[in-house]
Amino acid sequence: GSESSSEPASTAEPGKYQTLQVTKEDGVYKIMLNRPSKKNAINYEMYEEWGQALNEAAQDKDVVLAVVTGAGDLYCSGNDLGNFANVQPSDITAMAKKGGDILEKFVNAFIDFPKPLIGLINGPAVGVSVTVLGLFDVVYATDKATFHTPFSALGQSPEGCSSYTFPKMMGTAKATELLLFNKKITAVEACERNLVTEVFPDGTFKSETEARVKEYAKLPKISLQKSKNLSRDAERQKLYEI
Amino acid sequence: GSESSSEPASTAEPGKYQTLQVTKEDGVYKIMLNRPSKKNAINYEMYEEWGQALNEAAQDKDVVLAVVTGAGDLYCSGNDLGNFANVQPSDITAMAKKGGDILEKFVNAFIDFPKPLIGLINGPAVGVSVTVLGLFDVVYATDKATFHTPFSALGQSPEGCSSYTFPKMMGTAKATELLLFNKKITAVEACERNLVTEVFPDGTFKSETEARVKEYAKLPKISLQKSKNLSRDAERQKLYEI
Amino acid sequence: GSESSSEPASTAEPGKYQTLQVTKEDGVYKIMLNRPSKKNAINYEMYEEWGQALNEAAQDKDVVLAVVTGAGDLYCSGNDLGNFANVQPSDITAMAKKGGDILEKFVNAFIDFPKPLIGLINGPAVGVSVTVLGLFDVVYATDKATFHTPFSALGQSPEGCSSYTFPKMMGTAKATELLLFNKKITAVEACERNLVTEVFPDGTFKSETEARVKEYAKLPKISLQKSKNLSRDAERQKLYEI
Repeated sequence: GSESSSEPASTAEPGKYQTLQVTKEDGVYKIMLNRPSKKNAINYEMYEEWGQALNEAAQDKDVVLAVVTGAGDLYCSGNDLGNFANVQPSDITAMAKKGGDILEKFVNAFIDFPKPLIGLINGPAVGVSVTVLGLFDVVYATDKATFHTPFSALGQSPEGCSSYTFPKMMGTAKATELLLFNKKITAVEACERNLVTEVFPDGTFKSETEARVKEYAKLPKISLQKSKNLSRDAERQKLYEI
Repeated sequence: GSESSSEPASTAEPGKYQTLQVTKEDGVYKIMLNRPSKKNAINYEMYEEWGQALNEAAQDKDVVLAVVTGAGDLYCSGNDLGNFANVQPSDITAMAKKGGDILEKFVNAFIDFPKPLIGLINGPAVGVSVTVLGLFDVVYATDKATFHTPFSALGQSPEGCSSYTFPKMMGTAKATELLLFNKKITAVEACERNLVTEVFPDGTFKSETEARVKEYAKLPKISLQKSKNLSRDAERQKLYEI
Repeated sequence: GSESSSEPASTAEPGKYQTLQVTKEDGVYKIMLNRPSKKNAINYEMYEEWGQALNEAAQDKDVVLAVVTGAGDLYCSGNDLGNFANVQPSDITAMAKKGGDILEKFVNAFIDFPKPLIGLINGPAVGVSVTVLGLFDVVYATDKATFHTPFSALGQSPEGCSSYTFPKMMGTAKATELLLFNKKITAVEACERNLVTEVFPDGTFKSETEARVKEYAKLPKISLQKSKNLSRDAERQKLYEI
């Protein structure tokens, strides 16, 4: 009956992921960032697991497309600053290298993902969780979402290919405010800047976007994959180099 | 008198084209898709003739710019499915090759067109007639126009360089909805996504756009051509490769 | 007191520039186009001095970012037609070469500028002063500003890398109207087309944008420079070639 659509999807391998809740149903592979008590901040384990889950979705023949969302009222608060805590001065170089390697592997999982990747941004998004959105294929957001990339305030530089994808989608004049000058924008502003595909009222966000994703997953898998890669192949080399 | 502007331009060589009505007047080469009983669907003959007409306009020294529009209330319903009808199983490979060759020749005529190319989208546009708009220089649309590229629903992939031009003009997040997920958009939405330059009320569409085209055709021909090719030269190689 | 912020910054080397007023204060290097009686038109001397000032700002270790604005009610009326006056027919070739060399040196100073470059567009902007805005990082405009690039009307071609930057930021369909068909747009239209970052009411334009620039200049200099060049490095070669 009509209730079947509201039943939760079953987790294929319970306990496989510590920081994510991963489900698979009707061709949709859903990754939910699942550290709500830490505002879904990305610690080393989540970087690894998120990339691993994407690779799993890429290889699974039953998966038509993948979706990423956050548990609770936030999407993701960005890099977990705990990643940098308790580092001894003598370990800084080694830790910077480790962090760089983990990040590169994480970003490459997005660059290489061969199927449609859809972001369902259920609340505020910060840092690297925003910058990698430029590597998604569709981004739907609740009107309560905000987007913030405060890299230069922390003495850092933008990541996740955003120095390439953001100017491409919104022009340099608008990308610079975000990536250099730490401007926080609303979901509507993010949509005007082509970072977000469409904004939904928070009350119907979940039901409306789930219905769309369900429809998309019924389309011919091979055709979707071929179409996505027509675009991606042309710029994959450029994305690796950034 | 003032009535002269509403007189129809004379067809240079009547009967030269079966699927198009082609006219030339005051530097404007006008291509009207002319199979209204078939919703201006593009059969093999129209692919050939449309490309041939563009080449003719390119070489004609009196032509400053070219315009494309549709006869009747529709712009174009896309590929004529009759192109695929009555094919014997043994002929599928040969026919797919023939179709691919015809399409490549057709798209190259747009890539190589050296003068300003203006689309006057007089009604709904579908399929390859939408995707090649990314190779036009200006696109004016009536507010009754819609834009639809249902490739993946048909198990096909986008064509006409749209996997490159669409993400470039509107960002990947908005291009994917059109090219992968078959979203149909209005003229206003197409304008917000930079596929359309400006939208006009249907009642004044024809007169307003004709007046603009007439003005543009008075500009220095060499200067227009040089300016267009400053942009096109930089990406022609990339367009060929897609 | 609160009045200190409205005191003029002191000119570092008075008399160094004839066509510009250049000031330096709290990490902000400010270039004011200063030929108000000539509508801030760019004569040969201003081309040279503007490029020289950018190079000075690039090398000065105390400078975090640079700002460009115009003296009076106009931003800049473009190339000073006096540059072409009183040329003897026998000198046309030599003068065209001189003009080309000066322009190339001028545009390269923008391409190579390694720090954030902010345009404060205080009124109408014309010609090359508009096209080089595609090489700025942020562009704030008063709502009294307009943007006009009437190249083809003068039998010229677009300059300042605009044949690359304009289609990239607003799509070809909208760039062509400006660069080929001489359309003049308002500040709001320029913002919709991603040429302008944000539009301010004329009455508060100066105070609001100065406050923002002041804040930006407090951000970590190295981080800003690194972030800007992540984007610029990837396309510098392409910009040189145009």
